[in-house]
Amino acid sequence: MAAPAPNSQQEMRQRNLARVLYAVAAAGRTGPVSRAAVAARIGLTRAAVSTLVEELVRAGFLVELGPGRSGGVGRPGNALALTDLGPCGIGAEVGVEHLAVCAVDLRGQVRAGRREETSDREGDPASVLRLLGVLVDRVVADAGAAGLRPAGLAVAVPGLVARGTSTVVRAPNLGWHDTDLAAHLPGSLPLTVENEANFGALAELWLGEEGTAPRDFIHVSAEVGIGAAIVLDGELLRGRRGFAGELGHLPVRPEGPRCACGGRGCLEQYAGEAALLRAAGVDTGTGTGGTGTGGRSAALAMLRTRAEAGDTACLEALHRAGEALGIALAGAVNLLDPQTVLLGGALATLAPWLMPALEQELQQRTAAPGPVPQLAVSAIGSQGPLLGAAHSVVRKVMNDPLSYTATR
Amino acid sequence: MAAPAPNSQQEMRQRNLARVLYAVAAAGRTGPVSRAAVAARIGLTRAAVSTLVEELVRAGFLVELGPGRSGGVGRPGNALALTDLGPCGIGAEVGVEHLAVCAVDLRGQVRAGRREETSDREGDPASVLRLLGVLVDRVVADAGAAGLRPAGLAVAVPGLVARGTSTVVRAPNLGWHDTDLAAHLPGSLPLTVENEANFGALAELWLGEEGTAPRDFIHVSAEVGIGAAIVLDGELLRGRRGFAGELGHLPVRPEGPRCACGGRGCLEQYAGEAALLRAAGVDTGTGTGGTGTGGRSAALAMLRTRAEAGDTACLEALHRAGEALGIALAGAVNLLDPQTVLLGGALATLAPWLMPALEQELQQRTAAPGPVPQLAVSAIGSQGPLLGAAHSVVRKVMNDPLSYTATR
Repeated sequence: MAAPAPNSQQEMRQRNLARVLYAVAAAGRTGPVSRAAVAARIGLTRAAVSTLVEELVRAGFLVELGPGRSGGVGRPGNALALTDLGPCGIGAEVGVEHLAVCAVDLRGQVRAGRREETSDREGDPASVLRLLGVLVDRVVADAGAAGLRPAGLAVAVPGLVARGTSTVVRAPNLGWHDTDLAAHLPGSLPLTVENEANFGALAELWLGEEGTAPRDFIHVSAEVGIGAAIVLDGELLRGRRGFAGELGHLPVRPEGPRCACGGRGCLEQYAGEAALLRAAGVDTGTGTGGTGTGGRSAALAMLRTRAEAGDTACLEALHRAGEALGIALAGAVNLLDPQTVLLGGALATLAPWLMPALEQELQQRTAAPGPVPQLAVSAIGSQGPLLGAAHSVVRKVMNDPLSYTATR
Repeated sequence: MAAPAPNSQQEMRQRNLARVLYAVAAAGRTGPVSRAAVAARIGLTRAAVSTLVEELVRAGFLVELGPGRSGGVGRPGNALALTDLGPCGIGAEVGVEHLAVCAVDLRGQVRAGRREETSDREGDPASVLRLLGVLVDRVVADAGAAGLRPAGLAVAVPGLVARGTSTVVRAPNLGWHDTDLAAHLPGSLPLTVENEANFGALAELWLGEEGTAPRDFIHVSAEVGIGAAIVLDGELLRGRRGFAGELGHLPVRPEGPRCACGGRGCLEQYAGEAALLRAAGVDTGTGTGGTGTGGRSAALAMLRTRAEAGDTACLEALHRAGEALGIALAGAVNLLDPQTVLLGGALATLAPWLMPALEQELQQRTAAPGPVPQLAVSAIGSQGPLLGAAHSVVRKVMNDPLSYTATR
């Protein structure tokens, strides 16, 4: 019944080590940081912080920069920084038309990366994941050559992932079904798999400017389908089975067109990529005659170009899509009372045309008094899922530096 | 950036004291409990638990029952129980047609209670809260006479409460607007105010059978309006400003009837009490000629009676309301992936007629694979908000027994 709480010295030490690392990471965005600044930031004594710092220096997480290194701005000597040589996180992304892998170090810098355009829409998961494995191996090698030690692999997928497992239960736009990534990605790195919208939202939470990144938001992301991730009080809301955030299947018009999910009039039937392109009269090129590869991006670029040129069908389709997004998001906002609604993915690039109708519906249908949530376009954009994946590994290491040290 | 964590011995001791209290509370549902059983339950050593127990006995939270008291079932001597004399929580509820107050002790037993039917629909908050204050005083006196010391007062209201304040921002069914309860409820007891659906949901979370109470659920509650509370991973989701759970204003049909919230076709326009009674052709008696008092309950009883008798208009109205509930809840389920949907409040008593259509819509519109969430009727029912309020005070004491002891 009680909330989980550390009940041992060991757990308390682990948490305090993590707090020191995060304090150095946060304060260190503007450069090296002193022990005193770390102590002030986390509310421990200078002596306690010194002991923790020594342990983290010994374990190779922190480096001490001599007094000469901290510059002439009056900062006290022996400034601290996170290492740029230690553990790193490997993030990977399975997109509908691309694969991407990157390595991020403790400082949060991307140190290696590979990307490959694919046409895996109808692809067999085994061959797609074999190619992903090759890219991962290359990035791991690149990271090693840069003096980094990969601590784990996190993969973002556009589908439903059973919570706490590496199994993609359903990814309609990949044609995957009950696919266990662990079976296809051999290797010694610990593996985590997560829905792309979730990793995208975590990237927004983790990579925003300190103090200004929203901690309560709905992150709408769209590749082919429309997904969302919900972060409240700084925590990602996964749902019982890991399937939370299916914004694309909120009923917008209960007697509307049939949806593949079994429902009718779902948001995707109005604002999903296929519905939008169809309504705008833009050919996706993925029909029987299409090559598949690049069809989506080309079609979306065409939609933008025509909208910019004032094409009536395109403007009308985008207006309708914005309206449907506003209706569905009003429901989500009334249910969740977030601070911000962030548009990411393909929707971000269409924001100028979606926003007016979206904003109007939200304004009209938000029940609570006071201002409606801030509507914003994701700053990280389409890099979010990949970066969120890599950072999730980095944070796992930082949350428990002792176990990482023990296992390597 | 890091999760909050205890960083001092003092905080760790506080948490461990709380864990002992919750362990005794949970194990103690079937009778007194030994130190060894507590130690096993929370994973601390017997010696550590003994030290904590001594402190809690000294502070008057736990009582030791001599070996003779623990019965002949072989249980080791000096069994422990929570006191039935120490601190208690005072819970209060402002209903549309009633006021209620109760006192709950550390064991979770209701030890005193008062209830008064009112007609405060159009009432001035000052006079309603004056009457509530009188009831609180009486229950506090009753609790004192029973050897209890009230530790705080928590009030459940059918309206939006600004998070972390005692201000009811809006309670349309009471006619309240920016009403600060602290200004109207003088007295020395620490005051908390919360939406009734939230306290109702917390009661479900806290008072269910150990191990079987859902930890991820949407609790739908209806008095005059339709509200909901969302509990995920055992935590109440309040929203940024405290306004989460406005299920009644999820758009069901975007071009539907105008709603007082400014939207159109909100769930309340189909399944709210007024809409339901109107569609069923049941007179509420609260019009110009009505007395107000008892009008709602009488009208709802009439609706049930007619539905039982097979009245077509009533059955059709209930079917439509169930359908609308199903559409809105499908949206909520797709967004949140809960384990259970609990129907409480007035809806619970109408469940037999609402459920078939509700269930069908939910089945059809749930996007995630696998079984749809379990649909259940609240076991605690209309007592939930009042009990949740009183228990919230009790849990605040148990979460931090040291401060309680220090302040009394």
